[in-house]
Amino acid sequence: MEIIVSAQNTLIKEVKKLQQKKYRDFNKKYLVEGIRMVEEGLRYDVLESFFYDETICKTGRGSNLLHKIKEKVKSENNTGCYEVTSSILNGLAETETPQGIVAVAIQRITELPSLAYNNDTGLLLIIDGIQDPGNLGTLLRTAWACGTQAVICLPGTVEPFNNKVVRATMGSIFQIPLIINESWTNTKRWCYEQQYSLVAGDISGQFEYSKVHYPQKVALIIGNEGHGLMSVSPDQVDYKVKIPLLNGVESLNASVAGGILLYEIVRQRGSKPCHCD
Amino acid sequence: MEIIVSAQNTLIKEVKKLQQKKYRDFNKKYLVEGIRMVEEGLRYDVLESFFYDETICKTGRGSNLLHKIKEKVKSENNTGCYEVTSSILNGLAETETPQGIVAVAIQRITELPSLAYNNDTGLLLIIDGIQDPGNLGTLLRTAWACGTQAVICLPGTVEPFNNKVVRATMGSIFQIPLIINESWTNTKRWCYEQQYSLVAGDISGQFEYSKVHYPQKVALIIGNEGHGLMSVSPDQVDYKVKIPLLNGVESLNASVAGGILLYEIVRQRGSKPCHCD
Repeated sequence: MEIIVSAQNTLIKEVKKLQQKKYRDFNKKYLVEGIRMVEEGLRYDVLESFFYDETICKTGRGSNLLHKIKEKVKSENNTGCYEVTSSILNGLAETETPQGIVAVAIQRITELPSLAYNNDTGLLLIIDGIQDPGNLGTLLRTAWACGTQAVICLPGTVEPFNNKVVRATMGSIFQIPLIINESWTNTKRWCYEQQYSLVAGDISGQFEYSKVHYPQKVALIIGNEGHGLMSVSPDQVDYKVKIPLLNGVESLNASVAGGILLYEIVRQRGSKPCHCD
Repeated sequence: MEIIVSAQNTLIKEVKKLQQKKYRDFNKKYLVEGIRMVEEGLRYDVLESFFYDETICKTGRGSNLLHKIKEKVKSENNTGCYEVTSSILNGLAETETPQGIVAVAIQRITELPSLAYNNDTGLLLIIDGIQDPGNLGTLLRTAWACGTQAVICLPGTVEPFNNKVVRATMGSIFQIPLIINESWTNTKRWCYEQQYSLVAGDISGQFEYSKVHYPQKVALIIGNEGHGLMSVSPDQVDYKVKIPLLNGVESLNASVAGGILLYEIVRQRGSKPCHCD
């Protein structure tokens, strides 16, 4: 197979466009890079084309991955695997260490109605205006790890297929059902119909988070880093819960706060601490 | 007062050196930037010189801050406040938006022996090899927010006065007692003498974190992002606790895991959930 050497190659130019949100939105695709992320993407079958340079074979793990990719491409019509020069690969990548591999992934986006029939864990996460890509990615990672059924990103939230978000998810982006095109009005109506209680993390909340007995179905809302709830009006939620902070401390990092709240809900559902047995 | 216009100015050259770890270590100083961080630094009286350009007066908050700084400098001999050109200011800053202000802060470092006499909250955080500056900064922020008495950074941990760490602490770096020059051997001996139990977060831990009844004095250990415990040997800790993860999930983000564990200890000490009352 020939090596692609020109950055003007039509395919390369098309793929590079996926670094921009408008093309990701239009094509419903996004880029992933690095050996671990591509391994995960293969595992969940969301990748459709692969670009590598010789550095991928520097490690056994990289060589194995390339072998798997080639097997996959051989057996499928709609995938492709292309060797490129290092300069092209680095142009497609958004980190300084793509480890010799960049792939195109298909955006898997879920719709609200389908949630009711899918593996209902009674825990949803609603993101209302998180702006930092690392925070959103970390929230997706934690949400998936603790068994959240789906994450709803309300309008005004950073785009989840942004490369920095994707990297911070550590692969959860391939797995957790994501809803990104619903308004707060529709989301609220759906939660009401499905009997989800709306719980918002809020520094001015009435209840200390660990003193609330969370109901069987909870949609936890995490707001913007500096401004809290954005689309969601505080009087439209059932509980506003706060995490206790030392006097003078303004707030926690949004992804840490989200992790503490999600795991408190899970803890209450799971098992009681030993000394209560 | 004259404006400093030359990047070759001796003072500017000395200050700029603080972007490098070796000079921070030697001078026991570091840089902070942005209006919020400088406000916090003033509040905790850790800043000794200030560099601003005209952009600081673009907002009322910035003008107020500059006024406060000038009052402080007038009344003290060992501080200085210097107007500089935008190009010099941007050279001193490490973000793209220093908001017109950079200041030099004094490293406040604590020693283990002094801890025993200072406001003992019975909760210590030991960092064993965290590499990502954002993770360390976020851990310091959470630790301070939940009432941790001090943070001990073992050798091999990213330097806490690194600019990215400082920013992620959101000002906690000025407040939380930090110990950075102790070996694991000394730390362990001190914890033993002071009757702290050593609890490590560890994905292969024997106990689910929420099922452990934490003792009155806990030193929580958080290891490296990819490799877990580094200086600390697993058989030297009293409990290894794990956070439950969905099948197939490798780990949580280290600062999220730290937040969940710290707040579980605090929750157990504080008050019981409502439905248990």
